[in-house]
Amino acid sequence: MTPETSGYKEAGVDLAAAEETMRRIEGAVASTYTPQVLRGLGAFGGLFALPAGYSEPVLVASTDGVGTKTVVAAALGRHALIGSDLVNHCVNDILVQGATPLFFLDYVAASRLEPAVVAEVVTGVADACRVAGMALLGGETAEMPGVYLPDQLDVAGTIVGVVERSAVVDGSGVRAGDVLLAFESGGLQTNGFSLARHLLAGRYAEPLAGDERGRTVGEALLAPHLSFLPAVRPLLGAGLVKAMAHVTGGGLPGNLPRSLPPGLGAEVALGSWPVPAVFTELVRAGRLPEGEAFAALNMGVGFVLVVAEGDVAEVRERVGPVAGVPARLHAIGRVREGAGVALIGA
Amino acid sequence: MTPETSGYKEAGVDLAAAEETMRRIEGAVASTYTPQVLRGLGAFGGLFALPAGYSEPVLVASTDGVGTKTVVAAALGRHALIGSDLVNHCVNDILVQGATPLFFLDYVAASRLEPAVVAEVVTGVADACRVAGMALLGGETAEMPGVYLPDQLDVAGTIVGVVERSAVVDGSGVRAGDVLLAFESGGLQTNGFSLARHLLAGRYAEPLAGDERGRTVGEALLAPHLSFLPAVRPLLGAGLVKAMAHVTGGGLPGNLPRSLPPGLGAEVALGSWPVPAVFTELVRAGRLPEGEAFAALNMGVGFVLVVAEGDVAEVRERVGPVAGVPARLHAIGRVREGAGVALIGA
Repeated sequence: MTPETSGYKEAGVDLAAAEETMRRIEGAVASTYTPQVLRGLGAFGGLFALPAGYSEPVLVASTDGVGTKTVVAAALGRHALIGSDLVNHCVNDILVQGATPLFFLDYVAASRLEPAVVAEVVTGVADACRVAGMALLGGETAEMPGVYLPDQLDVAGTIVGVVERSAVVDGSGVRAGDVLLAFESGGLQTNGFSLARHLLAGRYAEPLAGDERGRTVGEALLAPHLSFLPAVRPLLGAGLVKAMAHVTGGGLPGNLPRSLPPGLGAEVALGSWPVPAVFTELVRAGRLPEGEAFAALNMGVGFVLVVAEGDVAEVRERVGPVAGVPARLHAIGRVREGAGVALIGA
Repeated sequence: MTPETSGYKEAGVDLAAAEETMRRIEGAVASTYTPQVLRGLGAFGGLFALPAGYSEPVLVASTDGVGTKTVVAAALGRHALIGSDLVNHCVNDILVQGATPLFFLDYVAASRLEPAVVAEVVTGVADACRVAGMALLGGETAEMPGVYLPDQLDVAGTIVGVVERSAVVDGSGVRAGDVLLAFESGGLQTNGFSLARHLLAGRYAEPLAGDERGRTVGEALLAPHLSFLPAVRPLLGAGLVKAMAHVTGGGLPGNLPRSLPPGLGAEVALGSWPVPAVFTELVRAGRLPEGEAFAALNMGVGFVLVVAEGDVAEVRERVGPVAGVPARLHAIGRVREGAGVALIGA
């Protein structure tokens, strides 16, 4: 019994199948290894040589999960996207400070680990790591009988990135009048799922009314959490971006002010970006007042750049792709004196 | 509704109590901050300036959980130690490579987050971080209704440390005849709890037969996972330690060989260290064959140093304390040609 397979053996899973799963995971994990990953004996932890060329390297780290998006994924039997959702969420979180991803570690736990599900999740994690140019340096799978409900799992992860100290994006240059440029989220990303499940349970197989892509409710809920790294990377060296916000739990009102200096808030013009049908359906199903919807959901805005008005054209010109296609940037409002986020009627 | 408290509000918990809990956690977290922690605007990730003085810094990272020790902690209503268990487990995992801890991020998830429990766990995490000299740089608490069983929680964490590339302890100098010096674990650390719960369920309140400290079965199961960093740190600069092993899941046979070069194994003499009563009780209750007990449990050995015979006296002289008291080091065996771990009868 080796430590890698003991959990499977204890759970009564076919050991040969479990070892096959581990081999598949190993291949996916190894495919993410950059030259910085040092392999050697006795590795209880993953070893990563810091890239040369930083004079004052600042490490930026974040831990996150995908919330109960796992429950929807389990209901639909589609776990592959959960892995990339997790990675992209974390990539965006450290991108806000201007950091480049270095490595990632994942944590997958369940009452009983189903080899095929673990392989699907971890392969998704590895794929998104490779796209982000970072190593999947380590991870942990845990069988926790008596802690998790049957057929459910939790997926969390930790990212570590680096940024030169002088290049940290910290919002200090933000002024009233600066423009808010928004990337579309395309869906819930990884927040608001407890609310969404409450409102839309039992309707996952229904066609989603008004969905431009003809998806079911469940498919629209599982829309991937996009990475905005390829879009933002070309802007970072140029000093064109004063601040950024990743629109996660708490929505625009909860996340945008975190990026702004004291004394500054924002006004956001409703109708200035397309709201995906899944949000319209959630607002309708829950009869959610506007303020509540915006505080719980991203309402279609995935990530926000704060840019001087004079730089908007250059940002639009230089911005990179999102998920392989040209980014659509929407001017959704401005920074203003005050605090918080004011939603201005359409 | 701010992002920090939205989870509590959704769960119907008294918001004032939740905010009080958050304030308490914030204080504990802030108490871990070293001068390397940079605080500023827009911090979606934690910022940590790499300490100066490394010419080729290697980052060492590990993610781990405490397994179903959480279930025993929940049954006894004692969550404080779970936090330090988690941190110390991770500290030991990167210590094996000679790494010094830099920062930690924690993840606490449950069906419903009980503010008092979260505060207890996170305060325990922060306390152990402070002892290890590292910052609790970030973390995530997640409410996952529909994923976790009621009254259960999961606790995981990620450590990042650093070691100069030339000082990585990689086992390359290990030779047949080198001595294995073992630190006592004092208990299960954080592995073997699914087995222990299976064998000892319903007996947590019983006195533990033969326990030198007069504890109940439950108290002995919750014995803290010790940090061996203060003990090992004085040895690292001196090049006295050729390899190390942290005895976690898989026990001595699963962990010791990971530290040894190919072609080398170990022989371990039974009876050369004291086996705590909790292991004797587990072996008795489960009628566990020796091989199975050693593969599932640490059997009293927490951490192993591989040392040249000629350096043993100096190691014993220089070794630091464990949990504030002088370390007891036991010579439990030797490296030998071959593979695996041979247990030699008492």
